[in-house]
Amino acid sequence: MKLLRLLLPLTLITLKAHAEDGYRLWLRYDKIENAALRSSYSNQLQYIKVYGQSPTLAAAQKELVMGLSGLTGNTPRESATTEQASLLLFTRFTQPAQLTGITTDYAALGQDGFCITTARIKEKKVTIITANTDIGVLYGTFHLLRLLQTQQPIQAVQVVSVPAIQHRILNHWDNLNRTIERGYAGFSIWNWHTLPDYIDQRYIDYARANASIGINGTVLTNVNANALVLTHDYLLKVKALADAFRPYGLKVYLTAKFSAPVEIGGLKTADPLDTSVQHWWQHKADEIYELIPDFGGFLVKANSEGQPGPQTYNRTHADGANMLADAVGTHGGIIMWRAFVYDVRVQKHDEDFDSNKTNKNLPDIAAADRFKQAYAEFTKLDGQFRKNVLVQVKNGPIDFQPREPFSPLFGAMPQTPLAMEFQLTMEYLGQGTHLVYQAPLFKEVLDADTYATGKGATIAKVIDGSLYHHSLSAIAGVSNIGSERNWTNHPFGQATWYAYGKLAWNPNANARDIAREWVQQTFTHQPQAVQTITDMMMASREAVVNYMTPLGLHHIMGASGHWGPGPWVNNAGRADWNSVYYHRADSFGLGFNRTATGSNALAQYKPEVQAQWKDSNTCDERYLLWFHHVSWQHHMHSGKTLWDELCTRYQQGVDTVRRMQASWNSLQTVIDPERFHQVQQLLSIQEKEARWWRNSCLLYFQTYSRMPLPAGVEPPDHTLDYYKSIRSLFVPGAGSN
Amino acid sequence: MKLLRLLLPLTLITLKAHAEDGYRLWLRYDKIENAALRSSYSNQLQYIKVYGQSPTLAAAQKELVMGLSGLTGNTPRESATTEQASLLLFTRFTQPAQLTGITTDYAALGQDGFCITTARIKEKKVTIITANTDIGVLYGTFHLLRLLQTQQPIQAVQVVSVPAIQHRILNHWDNLNRTIERGYAGFSIWNWHTLPDYIDQRYIDYARANASIGINGTVLTNVNANALVLTHDYLLKVKALADAFRPYGLKVYLTAKFSAPVEIGGLKTADPLDTSVQHWWQHKADEIYELIPDFGGFLVKANSEGQPGPQTYNRTHADGANMLADAVGTHGGIIMWRAFVYDVRVQKHDEDFDSNKTNKNLPDIAAADRFKQAYAEFTKLDGQFRKNVLVQVKNGPIDFQPREPFSPLFGAMPQTPLAMEFQLTMEYLGQGTHLVYQAPLFKEVLDADTYATGKGATIAKVIDGSLYHHSLSAIAGVSNIGSERNWTNHPFGQATWYAYGKLAWNPNANARDIAREWVQQTFTHQPQAVQTITDMMMASREAVVNYMTPLGLHHIMGASGHWGPGPWVNNAGRADWNSVYYHRADSFGLGFNRTATGSNALAQYKPEVQAQWKDSNTCDERYLLWFHHVSWQHHMHSGKTLWDELCTRYQQGVDTVRRMQASWNSLQTVIDPERFHQVQQLLSIQEKEARWWRNSCLLYFQTYSRMPLPAGVEPPDHTLDYYKSIRSLFVPGAGSN
Repeated sequence: MKLLRLLLPLTLITLKAHAEDGYRLWLRYDKIENAALRSSYSNQLQYIKVYGQSPTLAAAQKELVMGLSGLTGNTPRESATTEQASLLLFTRFTQPAQLTGITTDYAALGQDGFCITTARIKEKKVTIITANTDIGVLYGTFHLLRLLQTQQPIQAVQVVSVPAIQHRILNHWDNLNRTIERGYAGFSIWNWHTLPDYIDQRYIDYARANASIGINGTVLTNVNANALVLTHDYLLKVKALADAFRPYGLKVYLTAKFSAPVEIGGLKTADPLDTSVQHWWQHKADEIYELIPDFGGFLVKANSEGQPGPQTYNRTHADGANMLADAVGTHGGIIMWRAFVYDVRVQKHDEDFDSNKTNKNLPDIAAADRFKQAYAEFTKLDGQFRKNVLVQVKNGPIDFQPREPFSPLFGAMPQTPLAMEFQLTMEYLGQGTHLVYQAPLFKEVLDADTYATGKGATIAKVIDGSLYHHSLSAIAGVSNIGSERNWTNHPFGQATWYAYGKLAWNPNANARDIAREWVQQTFTHQPQAVQTITDMMMASREAVVNYMTPLGLHHIMGASGHWGPGPWVNNAGRADWNSVYYHRADSFGLGFNRTATGSNALAQYKPEVQAQWKDSNTCDERYLLWFHHVSWQHHMHSGKTLWDELCTRYQQGVDTVRRMQASWNSLQTVIDPERFHQVQQLLSIQEKEARWWRNSCLLYFQTYSRMPLPAGVEPPDHTLDYYKSIRSLFVPGAGSN
Repeated sequence: MKLLRLLLPLTLITLKAHAEDGYRLWLRYDKIENAALRSSYSNQLQYIKVYGQSPTLAAAQKELVMGLSGLTGNTPRESATTEQASLLLFTRFTQPAQLTGITTDYAALGQDGFCITTARIKEKKVTIITANTDIGVLYGTFHLLRLLQTQQPIQAVQVVSVPAIQHRILNHWDNLNRTIERGYAGFSIWNWHTLPDYIDQRYIDYARANASIGINGTVLTNVNANALVLTHDYLLKVKALADAFRPYGLKVYLTAKFSAPVEIGGLKTADPLDTSVQHWWQHKADEIYELIPDFGGFLVKANSEGQPGPQTYNRTHADGANMLADAVGTHGGIIMWRAFVYDVRVQKHDEDFDSNKTNKNLPDIAAADRFKQAYAEFTKLDGQFRKNVLVQVKNGPIDFQPREPFSPLFGAMPQTPLAMEFQLTMEYLGQGTHLVYQAPLFKEVLDADTYATGKGATIAKVIDGSLYHHSLSAIAGVSNIGSERNWTNHPFGQATWYAYGKLAWNPNANARDIAREWVQQTFTHQPQAVQTITDMMMASREAVVNYMTPLGLHHIMGASGHWGPGPWVNNAGRADWNSVYYHRADSFGLGFNRTATGSNALAQYKPEVQAQWKDSNTCDERYLLWFHHVSWQHHMHSGKTLWDELCTRYQQGVDTVRRMQASWNSLQTVIDPERFHQVQQLLSIQEKEARWWRNSCLLYFQTYSRMPLPAGVEPPDHTLDYYKSIRSLFVPGAGSN
């Protein structure tokens, strides 16, 4: 009872009628505590005038009213005259005649860019948001509100901001029954059953959130596609979403199941060179554009993991993509054709993967190294795609591992615009319960140098089209959004969504800066706390690499659900679904030899890149086991053996999580109790699962190294058999099991 | 833009940083607008003293602090002394010695009852909440807060309230993969994957909401059970929920899959008379109670719709129930054994149900009328069940139709406590998008007179145990709760949850009173608006009866998903899954003859009840087609023919929904924009679907009646073939399809 009394003030905060449920994301607009700052903002922006009429401009005005009212406590007024106005929003085409003195370099702003500026009209200082387009004005509005939310000075604000990449897209792997493949935040926010008649407020808030960070496209459906979404009844539902999103500049896209002409069209074939098939897709596209004039286009996963595709008819990926490109091209649509394909000829090798034997027969399979297959299939098609086709490439050659070398396709298809595919949902990074801020991962990839045209040919330049002068450019993030009240289950999942949008707009932005502004908008302005949380976030990605897959290990998770450790997995349906295929542990050592003496995947990179990785003694150790099978005794740069270094890294991963826990615990008085407690529980799960990974992997690899754990590495608290016996049922995102 | 300007003040309300998302249910605690009332409440209740220490008392204090702070704007203080206190909470056992002058008839309060009273201590007026138990004090606390929320005078408050029914339970038909059978509000709020380590705030708020209306038990899992929930890993998760719920007096129960000893126990049989089976269940119960000492017990669906059960081993339902009763009985647990069984011998009759023919072969099937089967199987077992077994009976003989006669089992098993099973989730009442306030349905059943012991033997008295002097009593409501932000998808679904709790506590409560107090707590105190909304709610149940199944029609919905009309359904897997089985339309007339010349199900009722229904000319017309096959020309009490009356009722159903729309639209200035718009959209869906029902059913039945639509009935806007061709895919709650 005494304790209870002490806690009463806290209780009060916790149980405010509106708890901090995370629904508002980074658009909280809570009242600024500093009264002087509040009134300075309020005075400067009190009288709003919007020039022009459109749902997008109305959305900008609405957001300003909501944002300024919340942040300053003062409701701004709508100004009747230009003379009275202190905050003016207009486009190149609605700029009022009185403002001839104000010049903007509109040509530099492009389609989506904006300019925020302060100027004087007849001695009166005004703030101006302008752009070529209404959506540019809306982006500028969100930017201005962000400056207020992060408590920046705006008296002399001058911002010109133009996105580097044209199509900044989320990919939802959402099924029509509302399950989400690899979704860890509940179920799909698309309630197909109540569409088109019921427009959930969530749809609007989803569009707002995306617009606030510049995301301008969303693929509504899973790449493992269901053709039904292309039937008329479903297209009416898609149209309802498109209508709801349109004011926020968010275009809808769908995934196209290649066999749709057969499944729902009644045709006998889906051969892309068959004219009846071509007509079917053309008519389907016409039907879609009749309903949704700004429909974005199709995302296609073809001839991969069981999906149908042009190869089913002995046609090429280019044949398939071009047929669809022609269908949508007349309407201005694009095709994003995924390069995530791997050879179906690698079939199950029943008894090959016995982890208790040296895997003698693995070299055969290595010849068909999955790492190499997308490159092999797609580089030969360069130049054969229509102008409105992008090839969408996952950041790494395998599949969204905690750390991968960049995919060798980047830079290797000069005549084809390549889209980046990142995975925001954390299939391989602890799923819904680990704190992993992914901006450092995204940056590592975007900043990587392909040397495709010599030094400085970064992936960012491949993606934004500048390297090979493509005007079409795109980036995709596989969504981590679901029906949970806070959208992403883990409150810090929101940070990755936020950072993805910011980096899609500007790949040169800094991961730490983005983290800091997200924290300020989401949690607190208290400087020490901002620093603490930002530090946690920046450390989190290296932590997950260390406790899951240090030194270049990859794809050693549990089968099917991809949850938890499974370095022993050796009986999955395909050779390259098995952990043992990737880590190649044996009595000699560890790692996949992808040099010239092995699969030679390394040869897919430019010589400068190869040089970084080809020698096991000089290889960047972050990628060592991606490219080399090295001895347990191998000398690492630290002076330790590979085995000792491996053990140390696993321990470091756990230790970092524990430091994150201590950091978070220090914030109890700063963070609202609901979210404090929520993150505290999640970090506790993360620490437990980090230990699960460390113990499982070290016990398993120890059966090969036969070396003791070095000092400082905690001994596992169970046996290897115990860890191997853990069965994970009903893992989210993996279907019912 | 002009429109936009006019809308600005409204926009401000809509876009408050915290929108009205419905999450807070009826526990909103928003500040009372009347300042005098606020300060009168605040003055009276300013100093709180709680006598005793327990998580439940802490919860009561926490709720008071939150509620009073919100409602009055003043944070109450915790009083150090009895002298200072103005609001005192104690139990019989912690009543302070100074308060000897205050006497409470504790014997009358029972386990859960409470007393709120005003008294004077040394000339100082105090408000007292007392009870025999901590949970009684918590119930009293919620009651006091409800008086404030409904703005009642409390200066001289005197309330004694004792629940009529001992176990007031929600049944969740939630699966371990988070789908919900017949769930229309998203997915299960139980996130089994993150349990036991992550306690979602939703779990606490769920328990709070239930405690606030007296619900004291929850069955976590689907009656179509998965044995895995009984494995140790899942029991740890169940324990975590039980721990979270315990302060709020909410016990957890599980569904027991009868074949669990085989499925997870490794036994060869699940025969209830086999000692190894008995031991397995005893050990399982011991394991559960070791983790959860106050575990409630098991709910069992056995030998019904494919579920295993004792009949699989030629044992009776009593044999099965008693075995489980013995296992949990030593720990104080109970068994709720469902009477929802129907004869598996009624098998598919492939071509029997051709709706274009007179169904000549139906009389054979009528002999096995599903209506009769629960009665036939269970009455003979009366007296054979252990003392801790209840037989749980659905309110009607078929399956939660918009209107059913009460199940003839009520009153027919004097030696067995019977639990009522209502269905809050609206499987057959428009699912997640129709406004149907179910309290009038519940009341109709509870008030029905079984005449089991002569006049006045109401079902309420059967259920509360008073009729046959059972001390064990229970009532169950199949939950309408899911992961949607507002819990029930339709905001008015909350009203049915609320009313269920209130009626479980007091079956004599009035449906309109409950509606009114729910509206006041949930939407508004504006008297005209309260009246308008209450009227809508009270009309809503009769509306759904009329637009779906007037005059005693039943079970004519679409197959599988149970969504939308399907009077033509004649090819479902079992005879009694088909609409034509129930409505028996032919060229002569309509309805199921359940009199002595038909299936004679009527004989299962007492003579006084039979008298109400047995003559088609005097039968209560609400039940006419439940019991009679009458001519299309049959003279109804209105003077119309059956056909004209039927058409008129369908039209009335649609008209009532339109009146509800008009009523709601009149409230635009009173209701917050988010919920106003939400309900407006949902009513629009309801109107559309009411027309769909009317048109489909009238066109279909017209093929038999061959009579024209009477004046005032709108002609359908499509053909019967059109309506029959509608395919409903991915209907929520029906699994993927």
